[in-house]
Parts: sequence; C-alpha cells; structure tokens
Amino acid sequence: MPYNVADATRDMDDLIVRPARVFKEKQGIDVRIEHRVEGIDPSGKTVTVRTASGETVVVPYDKLLIATGARPVLPNLPGIEAPGVMALKNLEDGRKIKAFLRDQGVKKAVILGMGYIAFEMCEALRARGIDVEMIKPRPVFIPWMNEQLASMVKKELEANQVRVHLGQPIERIEGNENGLRLICPGVQLGGDMVLVAVGVRPNSELAEKAGLALGPDKSIAVDSTLRTSDPDIYAAGDCADAFHVVTSQRTWIPLALRANRAGWAVADNVLGAKVELQGVAGTAVFKVFDLEVARTGLSVEEARKAGFDPAEAVIQSRTRAHNHPGSSTISVQLVGDKKTGRLLGAQMVGKEGAAHRINAPAVALHAKMSVEEFSQSDLAYAPPFGPSWDPLLTAANQLLKEV
Amino acid sequence: MPYNVADATRDMDDLIVRPARVFKEKQGIDVRIEHRVEGIDPSGKTVTVRTASGETVVVPYDKLLIATGARPVLPNLPGIEAPGVMALKNLEDGRKIKAFLRDQGVKKAVILGMGYIAFEMCEALRARGIDVEMIKPRPVFIPWMNEQLASMVKKELEANQVRVHLGQPIERIEGNENGLRLICPGVQLGGDMVLVAVGVRPNSELAEKAGLALGPDKSIAVDSTLRTSDPDIYAAGDCADAFHVVTSQRTWIPLALRANRAGWAVADNVLGAKVELQGVAGTAVFKVFDLEVARTGLSVEEARKAGFDPAEAVIQSRTRAHNHPGSSTISVQLVGDKKTGRLLGAQMVGKEGAAHRINAPAVALHAKMSVEEFSQSDLAYAPPFGPSWDPLLTAANQLLKEV
Repeated sequence: MPYNVADATRDMDDLIVRPARVFKEKQGIDVRIEHRVEGIDPSGKTVTVRTASGETVVVPYDKLLIATGARPVLPNLPGIEAPGVMALKNLEDGRKIKAFLRDQGVKKAVILGMGYIAFEMCEALRARGIDVEMIKPRPVFIPWMNEQLASMVKKELEANQVRVHLGQPIERIEGNENGLRLICPGVQLGGDMVLVAVGVRPNSELAEKAGLALGPDKSIAVDSTLRTSDPDIYAAGDCADAFHVVTSQRTWIPLALRANRAGWAVADNVLGAKVELQGVAGTAVFKVFDLEVARTGLSVEEARKAGFDPAEAVIQSRTRAHNHPGSSTISVQLVGDKKTGRLLGAQMVGKEGAAHRINAPAVALHAKMSVEEFSQSDLAYAPPFGPSWDPLLTAANQLLKEV
Repeated sequence: MPYNVADATRDMDDLIVRPARVFKEKQGIDVRIEHRVEGIDPSGKTVTVRTASGETVVVPYDKLLIATGARPVLPNLPGIEAPGVMALKNLEDGRKIKAFLRDQGVKKAVILGMGYIAFEMCEALRARGIDVEMIKPRPVFIPWMNEQLASMVKKELEANQVRVHLGQPIERIEGNENGLRLICPGVQLGGDMVLVAVGVRPNSELAEKAGLALGPDKSIAVDSTLRTSDPDIYAAGDCADAFHVVTSQRTWIPLALRANRAGWAVADNVLGAKVELQGVAGTAVFKVFDLEVARTGLSVEEARKAGFDPAEAVIQSRTRAHNHPGSSTISVQLVGDKKTGRLLGAQMVGKEGAAHRINAPAVALHAKMSVEEFSQSDLAYAPPFGPSWDPLLTAANQLLKEV
C-alpha cells in the first residue's frame, strides 16, 4: 500500500489480486463478507456469527481456519481519535489515507513510529511532496539494527529532508482547524496528518476466548502443520506464530511470505496431506528512499536473549568491483555464536545489492551452517555486481576471527 | 577488463590494485618480473629460470606455488595470426585492444565465441559505438543454459543490434588493407577487428613436465589444501582444479573468487595452518546489456553426466510485486535429482534481481539441501524487490512436483 499511496494517480484497488465475487462466482467458495464472527465453540465445533443485518447465526464446521490477521497498535494517547490521525493496515485504511491526502491537500505529516511501514509511508509521502517528521518515544533509532548500519538509514532519511525525533514520549495529540499538534515534553510537532505506525498486534481475541493456546505477543500458537491447540482448528497469517529456524523457539514475525505459505499448507493439511513448515528466519527487506535495508535471523541482542554467546562483525565494502563506475558503499553485519561457531544472523544496508543478497545467509540459517561453512560459499562475482569477494564473505571472514 | 575497454577515457592501469614495485618496496617480497620459469625439479626442489638478460639460473625452494593462470584458446585457423585478430586475458592484451580500437578507429568487430568474455566484450564494443557480429561453430547458443533462458539472452543481443551466427565453422581469417574477413561455408563476415573469445585453458605445461598429476581439462590437480601430487608444491588460480560441491568430483571452473580464495589458503597452509577449501559450486554471473545472467551448480546435461537423474522446472515471474511500477520478467530454472530429491543447480535471467539472488541456491548447494528444504526458505520480500513468493521459491515449488 505505501507504494500505491506514493502515486496519486493510482487506484488503491489496483492492489486487489482477486475480488470477493471471483471467489464466489468462479471458484464456488461461499464467501460471506460483512459477517462478524463473535465466538468459537471448539467442543460443539461451531462459530457464532453476527450478520450485516444484525442476525446471529451459528455455523458448524469440520475444520476451522482462523486467519484474522493483525491490526495496528494505537497507543493510548489523548487525541488519538482526532480526525487526521490514521494508521495503515487494511485496504480500507489505504483508501482513507489516500482520500485524506487528496481532499485535505496535506502538506505536512508526522509519522509516529520507525518500523518498516513508517519508513515506506515516509518515502511515499515525500514522493508526493509532503513535508515529513518522524517521532518515537524510545531513544534508539532502529533497536534491532547494528548502530553503524542504522546510522546509514538515519542519514538517508535526513538527506531526504525528513526530520527524525528520538526519545520523545508523546503526551497528547491536539487537533483544531489549523491541523494537528503532537505535544511532547521536549518538542511540539504540527501537521495536517498524523500517521501512527508503531507496530501491529495479532487479532487473537477470538482464539483466546475459545481457550486456544497463545504464543509470543499473544499470537495464536500453532504447530508445524499450522494446527492450534485444538486439533480441528488451524491458524495462519499474521495472527499466528511460527518456529524460528535459528532458536527453534516460537516467535511472532508477521510477514507476507510466511502468511501466504501457511495458507497453502493449511489447505493441504485440511485435505489430508501432512505439510510441515520448517519455520521462519525473520528475513525481511525494506526500501528507505535509495537504500535497501535487509535482515535475516537474530540481532546480537536477540541472540543473547535466546541463550547464544554472540559475536558480530561489521564491514563496509563496495557494491561493484574496484574502480567500476557507479559503485557505492554496502555495509554488512553478521552475527555468530562463539560457543558453536554457528551463523545466527545478518543485516545489510546499501544503495544496491542488499535486498537479494540477504537470501544467501537466510538459506544458510535454514541449513544451520557455521560461520566457517558460510565463509566458504561460492558466491557470484562480476564487476557490475560486487567485488570478487562478496561483501557477505568479507564479513564472514571477519566474523570467523571472533567465533 | 571489458568494462574498462568500454570507456575510451579510462586508463587500463586503473585496474591494477597493487603494482609490482609495492610488493618489492613496501612488503619486502622478492618479485622477479621478466623471469621465465622453464622447468621444475620436484626431487631437487629447484626451478630453472631464464632471466630477461638471457641467463639461466636455478632457484631452490622449500615450498612452491604454481600460479600460472590460464590463457585464451586460439583455434588453429589460417589467418589467426593476422594483425587485428586479438584475444583478451591479461592486462597487456587489454592495453593492446584499447590501443588498437583507438589507433585504427575500429568501426566493426567480429567476436568469435559466446562465453562470458565474449558477451562482456560485445557490450563494451557496442558502448563505443562499434558494430558487432558474433559467430561460433556450434549450433547451440549457450549450451549449458536452459533453452528458454538462453533465448532471452539472444534476444537481448539482437535488441542491441548484435547479429548472432550459430553453427558456422570458420575456415580461415583473411586480412588485407580493407580489414579482416572471416570465411565460413555459410557466411562471410568482415570487420576491422576479430576478437577471439572461445574459452581459456590452464597454463599447466610446467606442472605436467614436472610429472605432477593433472585434473580435468589438463588443469593441475590439487587436494582441498591446494597441494598438488607433490607435497611441497601447491597450485592455485585458473591453472588449478577444484572439487565440485554438488558432484564431489574434480572440476575445472576458472573464476575469480576461487582463484583469490585459493591464494589465501595456500599462504596459510605454507605457513603451517591447515586450511581446507570446500570446493566450488560453479556460481557465475554476467551482464549482457540490460540483462543479468546467473548460474550455480549443474545444468540438466551436467547432472546427467555426473550420474544424477535430473528433473528441471522453468518458471517466469516478476522482478517486483503485483502492479509495482518498473517490474519486468525474471526467468528461473532449477534442477533437482529425482532419485534423492536433492537440489543440483539454478539458472536465472532478468533485468534485475538475478545477480545476487543466485547466491541463495549457491548456499543451498553447499549445504546439500533437498529441493523441498530449499522451497521452505524464508526469503526476503518487499514490493520493490519481488513478489511475496520469491521467483526462486516459485521455481522450487514447481520442481517439487517433479522430484
């Protein structure tokens, strides 16, 4: 959606791959929109549904899939309900934001939060010539990211005229005819719009009320076949947890690939196959203006919490060969375990070559490779695409001295 | 070098990372240039050297490294020695070609061969406005490449006004004051320059004469510590062979990363460490105008020859998310073994996202992953960089049905 918001001429509905009526008309699926599930009775194997017309109906099931997704966290702030304070999660949010930008002629926006969506929306708003400030209560810019890499991202924002305010607890939002004001002890920010992007939480209340086991961050706990604690109920998508391939522990990392993959696996399993998912490595990439920012696996802090004894290497290399035109800096951080020598995670920031390169350490994490094994990988080289020692290998060679 | 040739204003010496005198003056290394080694005596542990002034000296060694590289194959054709028939391997070749282009005002060139160097030189010459035709005796454009992918590469050449002639055995090259002519039974091509780029062969004659064991293509056979069949002689770089991580057999794939890595390993081993190299996956990438072309592991044919029972999947996907601006086609081929389910190789062609993406299956080959394990990888997704199912995963899901 942020990339759609960036372009005033694009219809938000461009993003719909298949509208509800196609499920109904072409695939014979009984899609009931505007039906709110109010309760699940696992022992009776029914769901209680409130229809658009206000009726309550009880629908029986053999197998149930909970795919309720996640919703944006809205901090409990005075003024959070003011017109112009918005969050982006579903298509309807996207439509509202786009209409608001157009109808109110938004010139200045404040973004609360500094996660993926915050950065993507920041870029989208700047693309439309809107002045943007970003603010968050915590003092550290991107807490999971190595400081050196994070500072590259911060500089990229600032180079695009985005002002970044850290360590600013927000007291309240005030709205009047002149727009909105964010009131903090240290700073006051004004704008025509406030975008709240401080994260999401799983829509797991129905599951919790039905007595299903919950996982991290109150996500719905599922096994590797996507089954919840009730053998006839599955959960998939941003509402459900997953096993982490590095820690082997439950984790909640709501991302598109896992959500989609889990949906397919549930379909197979409901039909009697036994598809087991390996789990997630937490691989993610996002674009911040001209920078590609990517990660997979654990940060140093996450590794420590998971019981590893982490060491890290941070290197700067080039995106193209020695003296090749158009070359720029790429920074790589690798994390390994001193006790076992195992590779635990990777982070990369660069103007090119970070987004797809991250997949190599991601695969290495699935294979539970050691730093040494990874350092021996035969990675591709040609002058337009990197130095003969891929930046990942330079980082691995460096990390090898630490683990 | 091709990228340097592309730019008439760049000095070829830009490519020198460290000139010979720095080794001498700053590092205390007794570098003797213009000394030709004429023989190795493994039992006496000496090399016989002919100096620039014509003297013959005998130099003793404790440990010897043979790092003689490779040289271009020059087909045995009448006229191959004609002025203007050139090959590109060392810096001196590069200087000669650049001087020739400038001094002769080359307007039309014929390239004999269709490997990496041929394509890179083709692009370099086109960048300088030179008309280019490519020709080879064999009928198949890129024999190791899946046909669908290869046809994308051929179209890219043609879209850049390069004429491609396949299945044209060359009878002779004729040169006169009007330039050069390539005479074939089916076609006659003329130009101011003929570039021969039909491959390279290892400079292994000294090793062979000294009785050292040879590997594939007459490369020098080395073990995983880079030792030849003589315990005091090492070989590294394009003259030496390597173990292939997929077949576990000896192979000869002369590429920069392996050469460089082998050099470092020899240094360590000569000094008493025991560095063992895992081997190569044959990962390679090259640019053909606006296309990135990448491979790792085995082609179907190579897999069959190595005793596998190969199946392949070829898919077309997009380089960016659904409806994301700037998206283009990316094609992926994956090869797997029907007997074991193991992933054996990957090939990719696309305008973006192929060069670095190939590293993910390369790591999977090192880890000896099955197609199923690879299909479960948690790869990165963001709309500017690909669909939520990475093209590699779409291909893996497809291949899973075949293995």
